[in-house]
Amino acid sequence: MSSPQRPPLAHVFRGTFVHSRLSVPMEILHGHLLGVDDGGTIVFLEQADQQEQLAKKWGFKTSDIRELSHHEFFMPGLVDTHIHAPQYSFAGTRVDLPLLQWLTTYTFPTEAKYKDSDFAEEVYTRVVRRTLKNGTTTACYFASIHTDTSLLLAEIIDKFGQRAFVGKVCMDINDTVPHYKETTADSVQETESSGNSCIPSCCTACAVSLWLCLRKGEAAASCFGEGMFVRKLTERQSHISETEEEVKLVENMFPSYQSYTELYDKNKLLTGKTVMAHGCYLSDEELELFNLRGSAVAHCPSSNFSLSSGILNVQKVLKHNVKLGLGTDVAGGYSASMLDAIRKTMMASTTLQINKVNERGLTLKEVFRLATLGGSQALGLDDVIGNFEVGKEFDALLINTKASDSPFDLFSADTFEDSLEKFLYLGDDRNISEVYVAGKQVVPFSSSV
Amino acid sequence: MSSPQRPPLAHVFRGTFVHSRLSVPMEILHGHLLGVDDGGTIVFLEQADQQEQLAKKWGFKTSDIRELSHHEFFMPGLVDTHIHAPQYSFAGTRVDLPLLQWLTTYTFPTEAKYKDSDFAEEVYTRVVRRTLKNGTTTACYFASIHTDTSLLLAEIIDKFGQRAFVGKVCMDINDTVPHYKETTADSVQETESSGNSCIPSCCTACAVSLWLCLRKGEAAASCFGEGMFVRKLTERQSHISETEEEVKLVENMFPSYQSYTELYDKNKLLTGKTVMAHGCYLSDEELELFNLRGSAVAHCPSSNFSLSSGILNVQKVLKHNVKLGLGTDVAGGYSASMLDAIRKTMMASTTLQINKVNERGLTLKEVFRLATLGGSQALGLDDVIGNFEVGKEFDALLINTKASDSPFDLFSADTFEDSLEKFLYLGDDRNISEVYVAGKQVVPFSSSV
Ligand SMILES: [Zn+2]
Ligand SMILES: [Zn+2]
Repeated sequence: MSSPQRPPLAHVFRGTFVHSRLSVPMEILHGHLLGVDDGGTIVFLEQADQQEQLAKKWGFKTSDIRELSHHEFFMPGLVDTHIHAPQYSFAGTRVDLPLLQWLTTYTFPTEAKYKDSDFAEEVYTRVVRRTLKNGTTTACYFASIHTDTSLLLAEIIDKFGQRAFVGKVCMDINDTVPHYKETTADSVQETESSGNSCIPSCCTACAVSLWLCLRKGEAAASCFGEGMFVRKLTERQSHISETEEEVKLVENMFPSYQSYTELYDKNKLLTGKTVMAHGCYLSDEELELFNLRGSAVAHCPSSNFSLSSGILNVQKVLKHNVKLGLGTDVAGGYSASMLDAIRKTMMASTTLQINKVNERGLTLKEVFRLATLGGSQALGLDDVIGNFEVGKEFDALLINTKASDSPFDLFSADTFEDSLEKFLYLGDDRNISEVYVAGKQVVPFSSSV
Repeated sequence: MSSPQRPPLAHVFRGTFVHSRLSVPMEILHGHLLGVDDGGTIVFLEQADQQEQLAKKWGFKTSDIRELSHHEFFMPGLVDTHIHAPQYSFAGTRVDLPLLQWLTTYTFPTEAKYKDSDFAEEVYTRVVRRTLKNGTTTACYFASIHTDTSLLLAEIIDKFGQRAFVGKVCMDINDTVPHYKETTADSVQETESSGNSCIPSCCTACAVSLWLCLRKGEAAASCFGEGMFVRKLTERQSHISETEEEVKLVENMFPSYQSYTELYDKNKLLTGKTVMAHGCYLSDEELELFNLRGSAVAHCPSSNFSLSSGILNVQKVLKHNVKLGLGTDVAGGYSASMLDAIRKTMMASTTLQINKVNERGLTLKEVFRLATLGGSQALGLDDVIGNFEVGKEFDALLINTKASDSPFDLFSADTFEDSLEKFLYLGDDRNISEVYVAGKQVVPFSSSV
């Protein structure tokens, strides 16, 4: 009966927990107790009838338990595997052009403005607040080519307590917007100074890797600094096979390669740390190569619809055992909310049924898994986050399906599953009453940020 | 200088007005004055420099003018041309089956519950509140087969002040859910007693018109009672050509007809008052017949995506000069918000570009017109509502793009057009600060409802 020698727990919650496992797309655990230690790690998730033993082992009292109401539940934080922070300033506008024109007309000129740190600070503060408020606990951000303001983004993320990767954009052969480019030498130097974790194969300026660095004027092989939660990794994120026009362009530029994927692969940019956005037109052979290298796909359906790019066949990707997460791709995608990405993933899936490409569609539960556990796998963080397994860090959303001013209605006949489905299809930030990252409550925002 | 003999105006607003005309999909009028008389009719919309003359003519003082802020504007109320009120109870759930199974498994059993007037009252109150709060000033509702609760829906609409059509469902050969049907004789009698405006061709029980009455177990030729704003019309609404499976079924049942449209037409159900939902698989010949009869299409993209039904080619419909409005089709569509219908219309349009069916997509401005003026045309109300032309009734939404807790961010570089686009893509009921129907403010809700 001796009290444990460990420090007191940071949280003990009692109620309903909804999350995914590899073996099951959605698991609903009613009447459970979940404990989080002061390092933010989940130390137990057990049925509430184990309370006495747990209390002894972990040294908590009944009064330490936070009891959820019947309209509340916890779910894992959402993982946005692909978002362009600088483009947030025009999210919700200017999605009226196809990709290549869209980049030249709207994106490059806007990103050029991120030299200005006041502008950058305003936009970056807003995008971090907005995504956190909408439940994105982990985001894989692209910044711009500007080292100073890319570091500023990392600082803001740190201040708000979001888990994130930040990639500075590499671009040196952009002829369309002359003031938004850097020389190859600058690119190497700047990139090296921004995070001392540059991948030499990226920036040592052979024509091929420059194309790869250029793709859409964004980082093919971005070099990552260390943000709050940015572990010492050399992550690489880029875009691949987004539109048919782009695929043809690559074929014409590099006729000696078998495929777009081979181009990346032969230049050592397809690795177990690579996350490639879109992939709408990847062949079975290319997906096999993704699988072989352990590279991941970031599915960004909102952007794919808005820019008329294409429709990724998620089921085909999964059949090849390729890791897959969801991304908002702001501002090609107009919404910074991962709930929107979930809904659009459902729509992309049913569109493939309408087009007679697939017999059946993804279920909402499967898409829920992609937005949480799938994203953590895509970013190589599934040993740390993605669900409520003991030993992982507590990244979580407290959902209230009867929040004041909730955007949907519940009726007496509604089961818990109904209310959960209504939240996934119709809910918004009004239903996300608290957000936790690594056990720390980050929403509602503290008065210090 | 004599004061006019007319009663004082109900409203004079000064600020920005955004609406559509036949000649232009979106017109943005900054610095304008709009006056509404005590009957709810717009009596002027002029540049603000006409204030002195207008004040004289209409007898208002400067202090009578309500000045909008720079972040506010008025737009016409949204017109939902197709929504199933009873299905609102499960909106946001159960969109995981194809149409015909979906009807049998979820829809018919739920609609059968509307015998119970307590249940009906709760759901109908919620759906009217929810749609009004989201800016639907006019809705074309399906009710259920139950006369009492269908009349209850009309009363609730009346109480909240929404403009609406309410159609009682006719169904007498539904074998799938035995307790949710009526005999043909009952159907005729009930329908006649519900609004003394029955269309004989509908319910006089030949096999064909019964199929038409049955289509999806809903009214092919619903007979309308008189709601608050329900004018003395015999409106007819139904569904047509929603899925390929259904089209084949009709072909097999009625091989002597050339097409699904001809089936309706030959049975006198395709008229200048008809609004047919979906129409995904209508041929050019069928659209020509729609045009000839003056019948309208209700485009319901959310439902079409969710139930994997098909994708309507809106541009093809418009090319045939067929009237077209947008519908939520709750609960095949999970959202009761017409803003969602606008966004999904954009997505259906870009999907047709991806599928190489169309070269170009609809613009957001064109879709804005469909959701307002287009809807009014489809319902035969374009002489009364749809835009801010003098002589029409003032059905309007006051939009605040900087509302507290607004779901999107504005930046200093954003133009008015940017903020408008952000509202259309990302805004929600938090940005709809006031709603007017026929000049009467109905949102925020008065304490009496
Ligand atoms: Zn991107
Ligand atoms: Zn319908």
